[in-house]
Amino acid sequence: MTESDAPASIETPAAFHDHLAQVAAETNDKLNDLLPLPRGKERRVVEAMRYAALDGGKRLRPFLVVACADLFGEPKPRSIRVAAALEMVHCYSLIHDDLPAMDDDDLRRGRPTCHKAFDEATAILAGDGLLTQAFSVLGEPATHPDANVRIAMIAALAEAAGAYGMVGGQMLDLIAESEDLNEQEVSHLQSLKTGCLIAVSCRIGGILGHADPGICDRLHEFGLNLGAAFQIADDLLDMEASASDLGKAAGKDAAAGKATFISLYGPERARERSKSLVDQAVSLLDGFGAEAEPLRQAAKFTVTRHS
Amino acid sequence: MTESDAPASIETPAAFHDHLAQVAAETNDKLNDLLPLPRGKERRVVEAMRYAALDGGKRLRPFLVVACADLFGEPKPRSIRVAAALEMVHCYSLIHDDLPAMDDDDLRRGRPTCHKAFDEATAILAGDGLLTQAFSVLGEPATHPDANVRIAMIAALAEAAGAYGMVGGQMLDLIAESEDLNEQEVSHLQSLKTGCLIAVSCRIGGILGHADPGICDRLHEFGLNLGAAFQIADDLLDMEASASDLGKAAGKDAAAGKATFISLYGPERARERSKSLVDQAVSLLDGFGAEAEPLRQAAKFTVTRHS
Repeated sequence: MTESDAPASIETPAAFHDHLAQVAAETNDKLNDLLPLPRGKERRVVEAMRYAALDGGKRLRPFLVVACADLFGEPKPRSIRVAAALEMVHCYSLIHDDLPAMDDDDLRRGRPTCHKAFDEATAILAGDGLLTQAFSVLGEPATHPDANVRIAMIAALAEAAGAYGMVGGQMLDLIAESEDLNEQEVSHLQSLKTGCLIAVSCRIGGILGHADPGICDRLHEFGLNLGAAFQIADDLLDMEASASDLGKAAGKDAAAGKATFISLYGPERARERSKSLVDQAVSLLDGFGAEAEPLRQAAKFTVTRHS
Repeated sequence: MTESDAPASIETPAAFHDHLAQVAAETNDKLNDLLPLPRGKERRVVEAMRYAALDGGKRLRPFLVVACADLFGEPKPRSIRVAAALEMVHCYSLIHDDLPAMDDDDLRRGRPTCHKAFDEATAILAGDGLLTQAFSVLGEPATHPDANVRIAMIAALAEAAGAYGMVGGQMLDLIAESEDLNEQEVSHLQSLKTGCLIAVSCRIGGILGHADPGICDRLHEFGLNLGAAFQIADDLLDMEASASDLGKAAGKDAAAGKATFISLYGPERARERSKSLVDQAVSLLDGFGAEAEPLRQAAKFTVTRHS
């Protein structure tokens, strides 16, 4: 791609927000297509899956899948399917994390959480159904004609979502309520709980685009840095914002006695750290040129957003 | 295979029990290999996964995977990996079904249920971790060198375990606590809740053995009949046996007001129905000869077992 037709000029922060909103809208449409339709008495669990997955949200993970796949010219109909599958996994994790036995949250994205809108049993099953459906979508030929590509995405997702990935991160998060964690442990917790799924969204965009393993590793590393910055920004928002800004309860982590970078070092140093993580993330994109501008903007967005 | 070297002679009921125990032992060894090892503070969820998955049980689904794959001469090291993956999914479903928000069971296979031995949050996460790990194992090249075979198994499993499979069955089971179901609805509930995973264990054995789609469908149908017979037998045991025989609370379904074939038609007609389902299952194996003897014995076992 030459300078003249590079899309860099459209990726001002304002244009980035349009771009993010555009991918979010396409992700919603695709989720609507790919989620089961309610039928029979068992429709209740399907309605809960749809309630939780079609409720908006920034759709950051879908954006990262699509933006990374775009680096390699991968067709949008494929990348948006993969993006929807990743978002199903994210939504499943939110449903389960919000349960009374976990973080016990009543509000999510400005609406009652799944177990409040339905009930606890239905919410557990809706999470199970979304996780299962994500693997189903990634396995379908429409996602990519080459079974090896589909398998590679499934393997990467299973590792990132599993016991030493996202599930392990939520386990650590629960342990953090009753046990003091040091900086290294907080960093490990956050890289598992939030970082893994964000990083694998980037990696899977690369896999979908037949990128070399080294490039996929670099995209993964980019995602880990972005995810860490995102988490600190989240904690800062949690501290500063009101519930109506966030669409969820504010100040809960501090009330639960959970260690964050803010509780360990104060907001100033936490803010510096998140900025330095964004710089690291952006520097990992050095080889990519103008095509990576959406990813650079995404990294910057993580620390400038207000919700 | 000719009459002279057919293994039919070893599949007396007693030999079948040895065969079942042998596959169960190999499944346990393979689960032990394939489950993550405890490390770090997040080890708690891994310990819960191992507690729930390595606790014995009949391992009927693994047996069916192996016996179906054996029909096509598929090497045991492959079929036992697939068998272990299917058992992970079964164990995840038991953990979640036993939760206080679901069936609220304290005892499973003669031991405290996962949420009793650990806690509710850890049990939810352990179930999530097992489901994810199952897809991970099926995706690994060691399971089968051909990515198309692995993808076909993943697709079949995801369908069977999803919202219009096992998850939907558990949803219906919860609805059945407060709503009267008719015979057709009870049959549908049981085919989803128990039948789907048993049937897909048979189908996946066929997929692993490169069986024609028509043959895979026949094995699936065999599994559905066997699963339905198994469920009725389970309900009869639930009615008749003591908790110490079953290793779980007895008479719970009746106490919860859930419709079963027994509550609808009484134990005699339920027993007849389960025998006729076994006959149907066995007749689906007509083309297979002596190699299918383990599957025939498995079908008969479902109605003669005592736990």
